[in-house]
Amino acid sequence: MIALFTDFGLEGPYVGQVKAVLAQEAPGVAVIDLFADAPSGAPELGAYLLAAHAAWFPAGTIFLAVVDPGVGGKRDAVALEADGRWYVGPDNGLLALATRRAGEARCRIIAPDGRRLWPSFHGRDLFAPAAARLARGDHALGPEVAAQRLDRADWPDDLGQIVYIDHFGNAMTGLRASALGDGARLRVGAHSLARARTFSDVAPGAAFWYVNANDLVEIAVNRGRADVELGLALGAAIEIAAA
Amino acid sequence: MIALFTDFGLEGPYVGQVKAVLAQEAPGVAVIDLFADAPSGAPELGAYLLAAHAAWFPAGTIFLAVVDPGVGGKRDAVALEADGRWYVGPDNGLLALATRRAGEARCRIIAPDGRRLWPSFHGRDLFAPAAARLARGDHALGPEVAAQRLDRADWPDDLGQIVYIDHFGNAMTGLRASALGDGARLRVGAHSLARARTFSDVAPGAAFWYVNANDLVEIAVNRGRADVELGLALGAAIEIAAA
Amino acid sequence: MIALFTDFGLEGPYVGQVKAVLAQEAPGVAVIDLFADAPSGAPELGAYLLAAHAAWFPAGTIFLAVVDPGVGGKRDAVALEADGRWYVGPDNGLLALATRRAGEARCRIIAPDGRRLWPSFHGRDLFAPAAARLARGDHALGPEVAAQRLDRADWPDDLGQIVYIDHFGNAMTGLRASALGDGARLRVGAHSLARARTFSDVAPGAAFWYVNANDLVEIAVNRGRADVELGLALGAAIEIAAA
Repeated sequence: MIALFTDFGLEGPYVGQVKAVLAQEAPGVAVIDLFADAPSGAPELGAYLLAAHAAWFPAGTIFLAVVDPGVGGKRDAVALEADGRWYVGPDNGLLALATRRAGEARCRIIAPDGRRLWPSFHGRDLFAPAAARLARGDHALGPEVAAQRLDRADWPDDLGQIVYIDHFGNAMTGLRASALGDGARLRVGAHSLARARTFSDVAPGAAFWYVNANDLVEIAVNRGRADVELGLALGAAIEIAAA
Repeated sequence: MIALFTDFGLEGPYVGQVKAVLAQEAPGVAVIDLFADAPSGAPELGAYLLAAHAAWFPAGTIFLAVVDPGVGGKRDAVALEADGRWYVGPDNGLLALATRRAGEARCRIIAPDGRRLWPSFHGRDLFAPAAARLARGDHALGPEVAAQRLDRADWPDDLGQIVYIDHFGNAMTGLRASALGDGARLRVGAHSLARARTFSDVAPGAAFWYVNANDLVEIAVNRGRADVELGLALGAAIEIAAA
Repeated sequence: MIALFTDFGLEGPYVGQVKAVLAQEAPGVAVIDLFADAPSGAPELGAYLLAAHAAWFPAGTIFLAVVDPGVGGKRDAVALEADGRWYVGPDNGLLALATRRAGEARCRIIAPDGRRLWPSFHGRDLFAPAAARLARGDHALGPEVAAQRLDRADWPDDLGQIVYIDHFGNAMTGLRASALGDGARLRVGAHSLARARTFSDVAPGAAFWYVNANDLVEIAVNRGRADVELGLALGAAIEIAAA
């Protein structure tokens, strides 16, 4: 299974062209749209979003992870094997938390395979072919390097910021459930939020935090939009208040 | 074939995670995105939208139908067999019209299968595995109950409200063609609309109603946006005027 | 491989119903979403967008190309074979450039196959079944006619207009790289833009033009939105200034 994690957008031809490569070069392999709307050009937020969601997927899954504002520039293209899952993407921090949280991690630099490589679309011309090769069991994508280079030493283990706002206006943070106790409160601007189990456990219109189905702390309003009602935006800081 | 009918949104990881379950547990089965943007949290509108669209699909199709504002609460999770089509979803009215319009309907309560069930994402953890089991021919999802419980006695056979507004600004109603004659007019606010066969039969800018390709009465403006020009919104009332 | 090029929108049931036809009538064939958001109702822009993107796909690809404001009216439904790629769609100009740029082009009128044909959704009821037949190797879709009828003699070889604005705010033109030299400047309103190789070659905030990964001249701002910052919209005129 290949899971796509990009900021290419749902619109336009980009995801489709990546899938056309995969359909030709890894025929019969299931391709899943995980995120096409990861935080745009922000690998430092995407890193926490990716690591949390990847943990739910079975071993053997290949993540095509492309949030790559430096495409065509000097950053390396890499393939990471972390606890049995694979990731292909740029070395710009996007794979930092997937690397750090792995018991075992190995990394290769992806060498160009001779095809024409457009400087603005490595997702199609470099990363998708690499993912297809992994799916075919061919792991010799290039020279091995230390996986730790993918981590970013000054980034925290859990990120007290909004890393994604979904269709309903719910705001995912970069905090895992283990980063705060059940009784903790979250402070967002002037609001102080208590934990609930799920939406239907609070009154319509009430704001709360809960542990979402990918083990991330998420801020929501039952039958309302947390982003609008609490004034939340990507990257906004979340503070953990004492229980 | 499994058809997805949800309000999960096109954005974010939700549809993708559902598809990852299906790819693993019903490999090789075609999965179709029917609606990811059914009216959000409004099963009373979605019920008419789902029943109309499902009628076009062949027998054997499995609808994964999740508009579930009470997720994690007390509503039951059910599997409905109605005239050879299958539906898995919450018992909150969403399946009311699919049940009522069926010649033969049977219902089972979906029993948890032992896996971890996150209270906020039964679509992934309960309904998708149930749909995969149906696709594999395993129908013993739980105890059988009377299908009539899925219906809502006080809901009309056809709904004189807007149940969906599409990409072009066309507004689908919950009325089937059989609910009104060819010569009927629709009243929407201050506007009175006559029937046309299709867009190209009226002048650019003209508003009309027609029977859409899923047998629903739809309000449109040729080369314009009916939602904007007529001030239409989800749930807005539509009145049938005498012919 | 069947690639979908439509203005149906990402939302709603239209693309899904087309795919349901393909899944039933051409099972096992890969179906790729190329564009669901081609310029709405504007085949004169879509023609350049389609021809440029189709050129990247391998021979044998079937394009289901439906931007069809006249659906249900008098325009013909056609199947075009152009240099080994296939296109099914309306004869309204959408296939003009794919035809003109082909070394060898053959065209058939698609004859209805007897199934119910809703006047508002030929994409599902006429074009999708035709694409499925082509995918199964059945090319006898109807009477052969001269392919030149699909071209539009008064349309230019390259179009100096914006034909698509993507998720990032980048604006694709209908100009191929060959239409202007490397040193050319583009004039857009009051702005004069120079060429760059890719985003990371210019300063953050800088506007430029470049040759995108489908060989179209594209206007962009590094880490910004060209559409907003330069005031660009679909159909806006682009002028080539002397080098």
